[in-house]
Amino acid sequence: MSKDPDCIFCKIAAGQIPCAKVCEDELSLGFLDIGPLAEGHVLLIPKDHCVTVDEMSPELAATIGRRLPELVRAVRAATGCEGVNILQNNGQVAHQFVPHVHFHVIPRRPGDEFHFNWPAGTYPKGRMDELAEKIRQEL
Amino acid sequence: MSKDPDCIFCKIAAGQIPCAKVCEDELSLGFLDIGPLAEGHVLLIPKDHCVTVDEMSPELAATIGRRLPELVRAVRAATGCEGVNILQNNGQVAHQFVPHVHFHVIPRRPGDEFHFNWPAGTYPKGRMDELAEKIRQEL
Repeated sequence: MSKDPDCIFCKIAAGQIPCAKVCEDELSLGFLDIGPLAEGHVLLIPKDHCVTVDEMSPELAATIGRRLPELVRAVRAATGCEGVNILQNNGQVAHQFVPHVHFHVIPRRPGDEFHFNWPAGTYPKGRMDELAEKIRQEL
Repeated sequence: MSKDPDCIFCKIAAGQIPCAKVCEDELSLGFLDIGPLAEGHVLLIPKDHCVTVDEMSPELAATIGRRLPELVRAVRAATGCEGVNILQNNGQVAHQFVPHVHFHVIPRRPGDEFHFNWPAGTYPKGRMDELAEKIRQEL
């Protein structure tokens, strides 16, 4: 398992920096975000130092995936929130500030302060098939 | 595997409504969002009809998790985007409009039109440990 000695999330995963832990297994750790968007905002991280999600091994990504439903269920039950966003940001342009993969589990309530817009576009004729083909070729 | 006959994503998963498919396995399907936030915006769904992520079985959630790194890698390579957000919305309050779990894979570029705010709060002394304990009790 790789570690970055300067990474704050590696230090948390190693127990060198304390956290309000909510779940842990061999490969992953969940703890409360100290700068929460809402009460009960959890971060779920791989213990392995991966900067972005595309660096994660299939096994590690499956473990993180497996944790998400149970974590969302527990956060809902504990906070009584009405909804939940799962958000995982890759790259500064995508609002990633700690360069170690983290999945945000964000409790939502009517009138809360977390907002995003949804500037949905459309594709010109033929463009979708072209793009899907390009992505398939990279898989 | 459960299906909702009125669900548009169940119909897409069953091949009754066409899509620009990017990946498929026994349990999951990835296809281009027809109302993209950016070129190459992909939706990854379980074929099983789950309304919110907490309804997913561990096996299904692990499969979806396993797909995410490879999908993000392929979308990056095919679109040349600088970053990626993974976003999964549960409940209308969290901006979920199709009631069938879908993970958005959203390519990001400097100056693009998708934005969210980050109104990070703080916890009063003691509150984090109290909340973490409540969540742990629900796991």
